[in-house]
Amino acid sequence: MFSMQNMIKEAYRYASYSLGEGAPADYIPELAKADTKRLAVSITDLAGRTHSVGDSQERFTMQSISKVVLLATALRFAGFDGVFARVGVEPTGDPFNSIIRLETDSSNRPSNPMINAGAIAVTTCIPGATPGERFGHVLEYARALLDNPELDYDKEVYRSESETGDRNRALAYMMRASKVIDGAVPEHLEVYFKACSLSVNCEEISFLGAVLANNGISPRGGKMLIEPFHVKVIRSLMSTCGLYDYSGEFALRVGIPAKSGVGGGIMGAVPSRMGIGTYCPALDPKGNSLCGLRAMEYLSQALNLSLF
Amino acid sequence: MFSMQNMIKEAYRYASYSLGEGAPADYIPELAKADTKRLAVSITDLAGRTHSVGDSQERFTMQSISKVVLLATALRFAGFDGVFARVGVEPTGDPFNSIIRLETDSSNRPSNPMINAGAIAVTTCIPGATPGERFGHVLEYARALLDNPELDYDKEVYRSESETGDRNRALAYMMRASKVIDGAVPEHLEVYFKACSLSVNCEEISFLGAVLANNGISPRGGKMLIEPFHVKVIRSLMSTCGLYDYSGEFALRVGIPAKSGVGGGIMGAVPSRMGIGTYCPALDPKGNSLCGLRAMEYLSQALNLSLF
Amino acid sequence: MFSMQNMIKEAYRYASYSLGEGAPADYIPELAKADTKRLAVSITDLAGRTHSVGDSQERFTMQSISKVVLLATALRFAGFDGVFARVGVEPTGDPFNSIIRLETDSSNRPSNPMINAGAIAVTTCIPGATPGERFGHVLEYARALLDNPELDYDKEVYRSESETGDRNRALAYMMRASKVIDGAVPEHLEVYFKACSLSVNCEEISFLGAVLANNGISPRGGKMLIEPFHVKVIRSLMSTCGLYDYSGEFALRVGIPAKSGVGGGIMGAVPSRMGIGTYCPALDPKGNSLCGLRAMEYLSQALNLSLF
Amino acid sequence: MFSMQNMIKEAYRYASYSLGEGAPADYIPELAKADTKRLAVSITDLAGRTHSVGDSQERFTMQSISKVVLLATALRFAGFDGVFARVGVEPTGDPFNSIIRLETDSSNRPSNPMINAGAIAVTTCIPGATPGERFGHVLEYARALLDNPELDYDKEVYRSESETGDRNRALAYMMRASKVIDGAVPEHLEVYFKACSLSVNCEEISFLGAVLANNGISPRGGKMLIEPFHVKVIRSLMSTCGLYDYSGEFALRVGIPAKSGVGGGIMGAVPSRMGIGTYCPALDPKGNSLCGLRAMEYLSQALNLSLF
Repeated sequence: MFSMQNMIKEAYRYASYSLGEGAPADYIPELAKADTKRLAVSITDLAGRTHSVGDSQERFTMQSISKVVLLATALRFAGFDGVFARVGVEPTGDPFNSIIRLETDSSNRPSNPMINAGAIAVTTCIPGATPGERFGHVLEYARALLDNPELDYDKEVYRSESETGDRNRALAYMMRASKVIDGAVPEHLEVYFKACSLSVNCEEISFLGAVLANNGISPRGGKMLIEPFHVKVIRSLMSTCGLYDYSGEFALRVGIPAKSGVGGGIMGAVPSRMGIGTYCPALDPKGNSLCGLRAMEYLSQALNLSLF
Repeated sequence: MFSMQNMIKEAYRYASYSLGEGAPADYIPELAKADTKRLAVSITDLAGRTHSVGDSQERFTMQSISKVVLLATALRFAGFDGVFARVGVEPTGDPFNSIIRLETDSSNRPSNPMINAGAIAVTTCIPGATPGERFGHVLEYARALLDNPELDYDKEVYRSESETGDRNRALAYMMRASKVIDGAVPEHLEVYFKACSLSVNCEEISFLGAVLANNGISPRGGKMLIEPFHVKVIRSLMSTCGLYDYSGEFALRVGIPAKSGVGGGIMGAVPSRMGIGTYCPALDPKGNSLCGLRAMEYLSQALNLSLF
Repeated sequence: MFSMQNMIKEAYRYASYSLGEGAPADYIPELAKADTKRLAVSITDLAGRTHSVGDSQERFTMQSISKVVLLATALRFAGFDGVFARVGVEPTGDPFNSIIRLETDSSNRPSNPMINAGAIAVTTCIPGATPGERFGHVLEYARALLDNPELDYDKEVYRSESETGDRNRALAYMMRASKVIDGAVPEHLEVYFKACSLSVNCEEISFLGAVLANNGISPRGGKMLIEPFHVKVIRSLMSTCGLYDYSGEFALRVGIPAKSGVGGGIMGAVPSRMGIGTYCPALDPKGNSLCGLRAMEYLSQALNLSLF
Repeated sequence: MFSMQNMIKEAYRYASYSLGEGAPADYIPELAKADTKRLAVSITDLAGRTHSVGDSQERFTMQSISKVVLLATALRFAGFDGVFARVGVEPTGDPFNSIIRLETDSSNRPSNPMINAGAIAVTTCIPGATPGERFGHVLEYARALLDNPELDYDKEVYRSESETGDRNRALAYMMRASKVIDGAVPEHLEVYFKACSLSVNCEEISFLGAVLANNGISPRGGKMLIEPFHVKVIRSLMSTCGLYDYSGEFALRVGIPAKSGVGGGIMGAVPSRMGIGTYCPALDPKGNSLCGLRAMEYLSQALNLSLF
């Protein structure tokens, strides 16, 4: 008999065949410790109900999924024009941390907000007298968007991010050198690294997906959390750039606006249908959760979720 | 009162404000002669009815819109695996005729079938003893997909394409040098240039859009022209790569799977809704029809067509 | 009648025809203030005599000419193998501050010690507990190599360098991210920026050229300041990489191992013949002193100095 | 006792320690057949006497050494300005057949005449009604420059070059697309491939080196074969770009204007001293003859030949 719960169970089962493949992110020592046998699949429907199978309470860090939260926060404070004066909207086909285009593109703007350079540029649009105050805005918003008032960042991972963040420092200084951004680079990176370190679980990211699926309106309580135009912007960027240099193949195989993070999470937002969260920290060479991709593929096929 | 015809009229009016801006493609002498005051908007619904405003009978060459026809033809003959052994599916953010990634990407495969290198690689998958026979497959299929049994290529434009096609020759020889393709380069390019030179009108490309919107089934007669899996492949690639290095912004502003050509046409396919054709030969610096983009934006907003 | 003094006078006259062309470096505010009417030409022969015409006592900062001093210092402390584990020896054809190759080259090492990234990597080879101690080694050595025990760095320029040094910070963090260098980036850059800010005059740089011309032996006093093998290394790198992306043309037109700086100086070392210094702060678009190039061309022709 | 013959014998002995390392060029099937145990060292002094050790009569194809002959021929017919309107003079640090810079450099000119793209551009400057007539100019000049009136090209190698020359075709079409060159690409490549296939021996290339060392005057007979200004141009380009992306290290370790070819030859020209030829078809990964490099290093040290 069809039920959402059964569907998720099947997606979990299908994904679990890939357990044992891939490896956790190794460039941040804290992430390398993750248990690659953990797997979870969650769906939050537009009535606000969350269904899960597997380790859906296991906490992990958002990593690049936080790029969506940073973008939503920046759009809220600086508006569309403010944000996109500093970052473009084009997919690149480059790895997430590439520096080449900052030099070769005539505008010097990073290509889009879903790669590291772009997310750092986005972060500089979030106002505040101190990095603490600025991250406060992100945290407060994240607590609403993920429906967890206790949400916080993981101090150990944050320290590890910061210690190994030289490439992000390079990206930030390149952008300041070409006047795409201004202000104190270490402060911007404090906010950015803390956002990457936000500790979440699979159910919470499925809720974020559901907010985006529901045109920005919380499926629990009905409050408008993101304005509809910004939702369209975010969903289109997730569709074209959300999975690094796998975005094109994900569009073809899954066809759902989504964002992955090297912490092992993938968050999907199916417009007017549902939010999806998956978690498994074993990554493929492009930095996407291997079992998460499998689960997404299953759900897209089984529930006919592809936009294309 | 709402009617499809009124909507198109409004889209036409909105687009016509941009008449006079932009310029026709100048790198192919024949194209530079186009009358930049010509403008047309057509919609074909899934019942096969076509509504038009403006110069919808004016003939122009498909140019890059033919990449969709070439891809459909190649998928039909060589299947998904056959085609995508020679070309990737990732957007690049590069101009349509860039050669850099053929050298820097480890696979040496062109990034996707919507840029020149990729479409040439796709062309090599179309079988036949002679270029004439091979182009015959393309032409026959194009006649069905655009519902015009008289469809043919424009000899003047073909000659002009061929004379000025050195960059495409360079792309082809680079790919043969790295064994991505094999066979006689001049023969592949004959097929490719003839496909680019297919002479169509705005109504016909809206019909092609409608076939893709209707999951491959002809809205006139009900014959399955493209198998559904191939339709999904084509629509996802149009969504992430269809407008060159403007694809990301088009997704954000319009959100319709579409393909533009430097001949001045844009073809859109709104899944389960309609096919759209626009025509005006004045291009923006990225090679997309300026008034066509305006018309697409209007229709997307007015009819709520964005997938995102 | 031939005399060295007359030759220099003619070189000065020939160069002075280009006074008024070019512009001072503008990316460092302090440098933009330079008086572009200042011009000097100096030659130090291998008996230690210095001949000058023009503003040869005018002080300016070494900028990239200090790359030679940094390399000599690093070779002295870390030896050939120590230094060239962190930097290559190939010319690049790229501008002096390009970051692309740090990403695309398989080794991630900067291409050579005559571009910014390479000189920063070289700087990390200079030992010391503090940046002060480390720069002390550079300063002490520079005083000997330029034969001025009072030599020091310009505090205003140093502050200006440091404030506008974001691109160099980006280069340094990129190299630390790929483990080409280690240690504290701000400390390395303090040493590097202070070296760039070393305040010299035209006669002094001609003396440095004479030391290099004389196989490392001071033409005043006869002390071996640089060991002969290191001199060969430095002179060959000056020949292939000393004038940024003008190095090939300089080899063809002048043919002298030389190093230019955006402060307006050019230092040349003609093996077994003489050292040459020129100074004029108006630069061509590639960052080389315009009148300096003219003077070098004249001297190369008149005295038959080209190695090629 | 010192004698030139003894020196060469020692150089041969030193080089022979590397026999067995490296591999012949494999991208041209004919070259892959070469016997990697063949080794020869020849010196031609400025009195026209040639001294040799080893397989100095063994014939091999010039390959990239012909770039020097092509450049000399083009300079003779089109002059400095004619040639360098189509090609630059800067080293690149890229492999010999790279296409990237043809796209990224603002001028679209190839970087220098010592890489494939540059040599093809140079070839287009050689006049004639037919490729046969044009290659005739090259052949006639090569016979004089290498002092062998019987010199001809190897038909087997030429056919092999032509069959596998797709990357060179790509380079040529790229340059014609950006209007750096004009004319029929297949005709230019016929001349270029035939020049690459010129069959020579080690003694003959040492004679070519001696002509260049002797400022263009034949050391046998005293005829001026290349005008002195052109000799300077050629020697400086050999110095900065003659050994592909090993040119910088060769300057440092050997310091002689030289040109290598993947046929296994290296030709050196020590100004006012001698010409050197080496031959061994086993190449290092950068395409230079491994034993040839060893022999050059030995001679440079033993005879103090480095310019730097």
